[in-house]
Amino acid sequence: MRDIMVEHTMRAFDVDLQELAGEIDAMGRLAEMQIANAIEALSKRDVALAKRVIAGDDEVDALHRKIENKVLVTIARRQPMAIDLRELLGALHISNDVERIGDLAENIARRVLILTSETPTNEAIRQIERMMKFVLVQMRRVIHSYAKRDVAEAIEIWGQDAEIDAMNSSLFRELLTYMMEDPRHITFCTHLLLCAKDIERMGDHITNIAEYIHDIVEGRPFPDQRLQADVASKASIPLPA
Amino acid sequence: MRDIMVEHTMRAFDVDLQELAGEIDAMGRLAEMQIANAIEALSKRDVALAKRVIAGDDEVDALHRKIENKVLVTIARRQPMAIDLRELLGALHISNDVERIGDLAENIARRVLILTSETPTNEAIRQIERMMKFVLVQMRRVIHSYAKRDVAEAIEIWGQDAEIDAMNSSLFRELLTYMMEDPRHITFCTHLLLCAKDIERMGDHITNIAEYIHDIVEGRPFPDQRLQADVASKASIPLPA
Repeated sequence: MRDIMVEHTMRAFDVDLQELAGEIDAMGRLAEMQIANAIEALSKRDVALAKRVIAGDDEVDALHRKIENKVLVTIARRQPMAIDLRELLGALHISNDVERIGDLAENIARRVLILTSETPTNEAIRQIERMMKFVLVQMRRVIHSYAKRDVAEAIEIWGQDAEIDAMNSSLFRELLTYMMEDPRHITFCTHLLLCAKDIERMGDHITNIAEYIHDIVEGRPFPDQRLQADVASKASIPLPA
Repeated sequence: MRDIMVEHTMRAFDVDLQELAGEIDAMGRLAEMQIANAIEALSKRDVALAKRVIAGDDEVDALHRKIENKVLVTIARRQPMAIDLRELLGALHISNDVERIGDLAENIARRVLILTSETPTNEAIRQIERMMKFVLVQMRRVIHSYAKRDVAEAIEIWGQDAEIDAMNSSLFRELLTYMMEDPRHITFCTHLLLCAKDIERMGDHITNIAEYIHDIVEGRPFPDQRLQADVASKASIPLPA
């Protein structure tokens, strides 16, 4: 009888975990949509769509609060052991990073409202679009890799963040040259620079998620965490052109 | 006998909470020191001090992980009721925001390493210093207000974030004019602009902490949360000069 009880409790915990994974997946997909819409709003300078992205962040935040609450209630109710706590802490971290990614998509949408009144520098906008599309793919992959507990994919995603950092560095230099060439571009380019910074931060949150997936599955921190922290923060401040 | 057991458990929980509050206080003070040192490193362009700030972030991160772990273990061990879960969730959120503030101090220190090789624009540097000193006072006050559970102070701190946003907006315009006046200032001013952005984000994390203090003590979200989110994100994108 006792064994059945234990098994019953275990199954209840597994159901909790499954529900949680489903909610994180839904939150991740919503954040993906926010990114996709922010890209479109920026490239078409579409104010109505930008406003929808801004309003849509509430939904991401609501899912975040729901997940957070579920994690804590599950811990209190099931009193999981260390190994399961790791899983729950991972869920907490990942939903946190997804929430920040949502905020950054909203940030970019807010910049669209400002950029419409400025002289466009189309080449730079196209670079930003490329960067955002790359981040969107990374986001989709990392949410998929969490759902499948696919560590190999997580490591690959992690490695590709260098690409985003490189795009950001080159865009930074490019924007500086546009500003130097024509002072009328300074304000516009400065806003684009802040957009690029937001996109680069999305990339950093995606690498965090990849690291948490590694932690959850392998039970130990990402091997190159130190190295990565170093590389990322150096790259986040592009060297002067 | 049973009542004594319950009381014993309650007391153990209170001890856990007290220890946790002490650890968050220590983490907050460490982050304050990191901000203070980042200010000094920036104003004196002191590379050695900047490097100490960069290295010091590991200690903030270690405290963060320790607090996070303690919260989860406490939940699993004590199975707290809703009201106590709120307290623990608050601790989790606050340590999270302090950790981000630490990251931003490190960011600024990293920029110091770049800025030393550039032509200085002393007036703008002084403005950044003023902004950072204001943020440092806000940080000290919010950590104090958490330790004392002083909601009135938390609300006051929250209200003063508008000051930081206003400083950021005016600095943004000022930097744009420096760039337009002399293209040789563009690179330097762009790095300062990113510094100001980091400081403004520190301010946002401080208002988050003030809101969590309100939640913990009053048991309900901050009344103007929506208004604030709106104001803050608008202000975080200064209007073109």
